[in-house]
Amino acid sequence: MAATRGEPETTEAVHEELGALRDSIDNIDAAVVHMLAERFKCTQRVGRLKAEHQLPPADPAREARQIARLRELAQDAKLDPAFAEKLLNFIIAEVIRHHEKIANSTRSSAGVPPGSGDPA
Amino acid sequence: MAATRGEPETTEAVHEELGALRDSIDNIDAAVVHMLAERFKCTQRVGRLKAEHQLPPADPAREARQIARLRELAQDAKLDPAFAEKLLNFIIAEVIRHHEKIANSTRSSAGVPPGSGDPA
Repeated sequence: MAATRGEPETTEAVHEELGALRDSIDNIDAAVVHMLAERFKCTQRVGRLKAEHQLPPADPAREARQIARLRELAQDAKLDPAFAEKLLNFIIAEVIRHHEKIANSTRSSAGVPPGSGDPA
Repeated sequence: MAATRGEPETTEAVHEELGALRDSIDNIDAAVVHMLAERFKCTQRVGRLKAEHQLPPADPAREARQIARLRELAQDAKLDPAFAEKLLNFIIAEVIRHHEKIANSTRSSAGVPPGSGDPA
């Protein structure tokens, strides 16, 4: 069991440092949210293209290449490659859900020429 | 059932557009990996601070504020707020795992003064 610490000076310094770190975390999270908003714009266009041209929503070969590349990038950036892989799988699962929704809504609007409509 | 399409010109154009979209997705993913590598540097420092000062690894009030803020940012960026919340929970779960590891290794090295060692 470590000793209990409670000197006001230390506590204040700790809370100041915690606050500064949390500000950085909040800035990073805002950046990530905006990057992912752009990413979903891209994958939504991919989803529409795939639905209009009857390509399957999932693409295991592409996903394998993405995972291998991201694991390498993570390693270089000193991020746990296993975490990077889990994260990509998490995002891809969401994208596939979107693609399936788009495919369903494209199939249900038969007769619409390709590229003419945003199924969302 | 929609009609099957296979005109070579369309197929080539589709693959070109798919390729361009995937290049953008790959660029965004690289950016996100590097942002998250920085985020984990911050949370590792938070984890060490918390462990050294016997603060609990999880902080539900802070997490609630983060989730509310990110949902708002997501909404403004036209990203599904539910997805942003799930993503943050996914990242926080990983961070808490790290904090618990750091807390355990700090507890097991009793007598080490605060700030003197990186338990990783």
